[in-house]
Amino acid sequence: MRFDIISVLPGLLESPFAHSILQRAQKKGISEIVVHNLRDYATNKQKSVDDYPYGGGSGMVMTIPPFAACIEKLKSEREYDEIIFMSPDGETLNQAIANQLSIKKNIIILCGHYKGIDQRIRDIYVTREISIGDYVLSGGELPAAVLVDAVVRLIPGVLSDETSALSDSFQDDLLDAPVYTRPADWNGHKVPDILLGGNTPEIEKWRHEQAIERTKARRPDLLNRGE
Amino acid sequence: MRFDIISVLPGLLESPFAHSILQRAQKKGISEIVVHNLRDYATNKQKSVDDYPYGGGSGMVMTIPPFAACIEKLKSEREYDEIIFMSPDGETLNQAIANQLSIKKNIIILCGHYKGIDQRIRDIYVTREISIGDYVLSGGELPAAVLVDAVVRLIPGVLSDETSALSDSFQDDLLDAPVYTRPADWNGHKVPDILLGGNTPEIEKWRHEQAIERTKARRPDLLNRGE
Repeated sequence: MRFDIISVLPGLLESPFAHSILQRAQKKGISEIVVHNLRDYATNKQKSVDDYPYGGGSGMVMTIPPFAACIEKLKSEREYDEIIFMSPDGETLNQAIANQLSIKKNIIILCGHYKGIDQRIRDIYVTREISIGDYVLSGGELPAAVLVDAVVRLIPGVLSDETSALSDSFQDDLLDAPVYTRPADWNGHKVPDILLGGNTPEIEKWRHEQAIERTKARRPDLLNRGE
Repeated sequence: MRFDIISVLPGLLESPFAHSILQRAQKKGISEIVVHNLRDYATNKQKSVDDYPYGGGSGMVMTIPPFAACIEKLKSEREYDEIIFMSPDGETLNQAIANQLSIKKNIIILCGHYKGIDQRIRDIYVTREISIGDYVLSGGELPAAVLVDAVVRLIPGVLSDETSALSDSFQDDLLDAPVYTRPADWNGHKVPDILLGGNTPEIEKWRHEQAIERTKARRPDLLNRGE
């Protein structure tokens, strides 16, 4: 699976893609993540990628030509399944969307900045707009990294069997049960007896009950989703 | 405002904090972001920070001692307003939470990995658990970067006046109106006439209508929030 990320701050994305799961997925050849510097596609003398908004108002707007040039070049090289714009206006990312995207082959992600991007880029090129949540960030780079991380870890072969993504929160609409490890007693704070007993069916039952309890207490909306 | 982020992958956070708004906030002395390597606080010979879960099951669990040592050291140096654990179990980050946190002074953020952290760290130290959304990520580092970005840009002096955070999406529970910049005609795709006319009150009215239309179409839940 290949991601082409178009950004005015490609350096911001260096370290997130060079560590952990994303590094491993790239080394294994399962995933390819290419970051393109939007400024390399600027056509005017000043190499500018933004301009004042029509109609006035605060903030700058990212212009069409550099995005168009970069997208057209990429599209001439391969077929893309989706051209995603990371935007607070988009559909909110959830595990179902991450699952859907994990079976795609080639995806372009556009990162916005400033006051936004010219609406016509969205109208002409973008096939899907995704928000990572109801909050405002400086740009689309961190959201792009979050999206790529959420998707890539679902591709078979990226995680080892024992950390299988299937037991994660949200895959079954339940939060996880609490987990404990050594020491059994930390300054008087003890591990629940049931986990020390070795009775696996009882432990599984306790964990399921704890997961339901926690979900009820913290995220009752998840329990009602299937209804 | 100071953030102390405790992570087993401090390198992952290097580039996000060295660019854009977060770099500017640190250079201006408005914000200080310190990333601590959890492994530096491991006390055993192997410098391990995780161990097998009690009760069996897949995945490793992050142990108490390194987190406790790092948190205790930080708490001995200054008072902290919050110790936040980034977790899919937490309350979902939104603009109101970012606003609340932006007036705090010192915040510790714990990044989890693997199957999670020993529940007793959460019980003993953590004052607040925050999720950036309903999806699973490799670790708490990207969520920590997202949280810091969302909060720091709200601190007075970080953004210039003309990019004031107050006109952002979500501050008024409305998505933004579409924005346009030059050229006025891109291969036949034209900027709406109203924006070219220079009638500011009419433009403001159009923008407000567009914002309401877009919010109705994409996120009707935002409009009903105040009711």
